[in-house]
Amino acid sequence: MGVVHILQTQSQMIAARAGRPIQLVAVSARDRGKDRGADLSAYDWEDSTSMLAAHNDIDLLVEVMGGEGGAALEAVETALGQGRHVVTANKALMARHGTALARHAEQHHVALRFEAGVAGGIPIVKALTEGMAANRMTRILGVLNGTCNYILTEMERTGGAYADILAEAQRLGYAEADPTFDVGGFDAAQKLALLTATAFSTQVDYGGIAVEGIDRVTLTDIRYAGEMGYRIKLLGIAHRTDAGVEQRMQPCLVPSDSALGQLDSVSNMVVLEGDPIGRTVYQGPGAGAGATASAVVADIIDIARGLVIPAFGVPASTLGKPVRAEGAVPAPYYLRLSVADRPGTLARVADALGRAGISIDRMRQTQHVEAMAPVLIVTHACLRSDLDTALADIEALDVSAGAPVAYRIEPL
Amino acid sequence: MGVVHILQTQSQMIAARAGRPIQLVAVSARDRGKDRGADLSAYDWEDSTSMLAAHNDIDLLVEVMGGEGGAALEAVETALGQGRHVVTANKALMARHGTALARHAEQHHVALRFEAGVAGGIPIVKALTEGMAANRMTRILGVLNGTCNYILTEMERTGGAYADILAEAQRLGYAEADPTFDVGGFDAAQKLALLTATAFSTQVDYGGIAVEGIDRVTLTDIRYAGEMGYRIKLLGIAHRTDAGVEQRMQPCLVPSDSALGQLDSVSNMVVLEGDPIGRTVYQGPGAGAGATASAVVADIIDIARGLVIPAFGVPASTLGKPVRAEGAVPAPYYLRLSVADRPGTLARVADALGRAGISIDRMRQTQHVEAMAPVLIVTHACLRSDLDTALADIEALDVSAGAPVAYRIEPL
Repeated sequence: MGVVHILQTQSQMIAARAGRPIQLVAVSARDRGKDRGADLSAYDWEDSTSMLAAHNDIDLLVEVMGGEGGAALEAVETALGQGRHVVTANKALMARHGTALARHAEQHHVALRFEAGVAGGIPIVKALTEGMAANRMTRILGVLNGTCNYILTEMERTGGAYADILAEAQRLGYAEADPTFDVGGFDAAQKLALLTATAFSTQVDYGGIAVEGIDRVTLTDIRYAGEMGYRIKLLGIAHRTDAGVEQRMQPCLVPSDSALGQLDSVSNMVVLEGDPIGRTVYQGPGAGAGATASAVVADIIDIARGLVIPAFGVPASTLGKPVRAEGAVPAPYYLRLSVADRPGTLARVADALGRAGISIDRMRQTQHVEAMAPVLIVTHACLRSDLDTALADIEALDVSAGAPVAYRIEPL
Repeated sequence: MGVVHILQTQSQMIAARAGRPIQLVAVSARDRGKDRGADLSAYDWEDSTSMLAAHNDIDLLVEVMGGEGGAALEAVETALGQGRHVVTANKALMARHGTALARHAEQHHVALRFEAGVAGGIPIVKALTEGMAANRMTRILGVLNGTCNYILTEMERTGGAYADILAEAQRLGYAEADPTFDVGGFDAAQKLALLTATAFSTQVDYGGIAVEGIDRVTLTDIRYAGEMGYRIKLLGIAHRTDAGVEQRMQPCLVPSDSALGQLDSVSNMVVLEGDPIGRTVYQGPGAGAGATASAVVADIIDIARGLVIPAFGVPASTLGKPVRAEGAVPAPYYLRLSVADRPGTLARVADALGRAGISIDRMRQTQHVEAMAPVLIVTHACLRSDLDTALADIEALDVSAGAPVAYRIEPL
C-alpha cells in the first residue's frame, strides 16, 4: 500500500509535478478487512478487480496483484478495453502477455506502463524507452534479483554454504519460503524479457531465455573466482547479434572491479550499451514497498502529464518477431575440473580443449592433498557449443572426476 | 554535429519511437564552410541564430552553441517567444538564466529541455523530473566533471603530481588549454545548480554554491586518504535541510568501496537520495559527441511524443526562492597537519579541536624524518564553522607548520 500512502501524504507535491491532482477513487483487494497501514475508508470498494477496472469514474487502473493470468489479466484487459490507462507492477503478467497487452492498449489509445515490474525503483524502463531513445542498443546486462545477489555476496562475505545463507535470507525476509522463483532465476528472467523487448523493439520472448539459477554455485567457485579477479553474479544478458537476440540468465563471472562486480547485497543494477552513447549504468533498490510505490506513482504522473507512448517504446505492431540466437555470442569461460594428479593429465585436458578450437588464457592447479587435483582454467573467448564438446571429452577421460564446472565470464 | 548525424542515419528508428518523423529544416553556425563531418547542404542556412530561431518552418530549436548569454540567449529567447520548443546543451546559459527561461517557455506553452547540459549522456534530468517524481528528494551527490575525475584517478594510479597529470590530460584532449573552468569546479557547479533546482523545486542558484577546485589536491593526501579507506573526488553535493539548501562543489573524501569511490577516469556519476525510494545511482559518459547527441535527440523525441512539462518539473512560478544553508550539514573531516615532533604537541592539537566541540574518530602520526611530523586526523561529524575555529587555533600554535589541510568526508 505504498502507492496509497504516497498519494495520500504527498498529494500537493504530486499535483504540482503532474500538473493536476491525482485522485484515488476506488480500491479492490482480496481481503477488505486486512490492515494495510493506510485508511481506505474514503474510497469506493469493489469486490472484484474487473469491477474496479470497469468503474465508471476512473481514468487509470493500478494493478499490483501479481500473477501471470487470472484476475490480474482480466482486470488489465478490462481496463484497457474500456479506454483506461494501466500501470502495473506485475512482471509475470507482462512477461507472458506483454506484447498482446501493449497492442490492446494502443488500440484503445491508452498507456500501459510497467516500470515497477523491472528492477524495482530504478527508472530503467524510462531510461530505455525515453532516455536512450536516440540510441541503437546492443547489449543489456542486469543483476535483477536482490535475493540472489544477497545470497552470493553473503556466501563470499561470511564463507557460508549456499543452503545456510539461503536459510538466513529466508529468516530475514529476503527470500520466500519456496525460494525457487528467485534462486532458480525465473523472477530475474521475467524482468530481462521485458528489458530485452524494450531495448531491441522485439516481442516479449520469456521462453527464449536460457535460465540457470544460483542453487549450484559453491563457495569453492566463489573463492577461486575471487582469487582470479572475478565475482560470481546471477546475470541477465541480452545481446543483439546479426543472427538475432541472445538472452541468458545465468551465474557469470564479472571483473571484481567492475560496477557489476562491486554490487553488494540486495541492490539491483542494469548496464545498458548502445550506439552512440556507449555504456550507462543504473543502480538502486530492486524491491520493497518504497521502490514499488516510487515506480508506480512515477508512471501515474507521466500519464497525468499526457505522456502516452507505446508500452515498449514503439508501436506493438512493429515489434520484431523474436529471432533466438542462443549461444551466438562467444565469451571466455571459467572452468574448474577435478583431475587425477598424475603426469600427462593436464596435457590431455588442454588437448581436449584444443581439439574443440578453444585456447587457454590461464591455467592453474591449486594446492591439494587428495589424489584428485582441482584445476582452474580461464579460456579465451569461445562458443558455448564448442566448450560443451570439449567438456564432454574431458569428462570421458579416465583422469577426470565428475562433471566440470563452467561459468561464462562476461566481458565488461 | 552528432545530433545531425543521428537524425540523418537513424531517421527510421527515431520516427518509430517519436511517433512521427523528425525533420531537420535549417541550420546556423558561425562558420558555414567548416567541415562538420555531416552534409548540411540539404538544409536552409541562416546567418544568425536568432534568424534560425525565428525561422517560419520550425517547431523546435536545438541550441548547442554554448555561452551564458549573447547569441545563445538571444536565440533561445527568440524561439521560446515565438512558441517554439527549445532543446539546449548549454549548462552555462541554464545556470545563469534557467529560471527565467523556464518561465518564458511556460508562458508560451512550449518545452525547454537541457538533458545534455548535465552529466552528458546520463538521463539524469529525466530521472529527477520524471523517474523520481513520486519522491521527496533529500540529497544529490555527483561527480560531474570528467576532466577532474580523470586527473584525480590518474594521480593516484601513476603517482604523478597534479601539474604533470593536467598537462597529460591537455595533451590527450581531456582538458582545455585554459583548464580553469574544469579544474576550478565551475563547470561541475553549473551542472549541480541545475540538478539542485530540479531535485528540490527551487530557482536555479548557481551563485549559492561554495566552489572549490582540485588544483590544490596533492598526491600526499590522495595516498593518505587511500590508506584510510577513502578516495578524493571533486564532489557536487546538494542537501535539503530544514534551514534551506546547502550546495557545495569541493574535493571530498568518499569511501573507496562506494560507487562514487570506485568511479574511474572520465565517467560521471550521480547519486540521488529521496523518500520513499532511498538511493539510486546513475553512471555514464559525461561528455563527448555521442553522449551529447544521445541526450539532445532524446529530448527532441520526448517533445515529438507530446511530453511538454515544465523545465524543472514543476511550474517555474512555483519554484521556491533559494534559501542558502551553507555549512548547515555536519560531516566528518579528514585533516592533515604538520606539527613539531615533540612531547605534548598532539595533546595541544586535540585540545584545540575539543574546545571547538569536535571529537576525534581516528588520529595517526605517520613516519617521518624531519622535525615536523605529519599528523592525520579523522573527526567525528562536526560543522565546518567549528572546524574552522579549531584550525585557526591550531595554526596559531607555535607547534604547527603552515595551514592544515581539511577535506570533508561525505557519508555514503
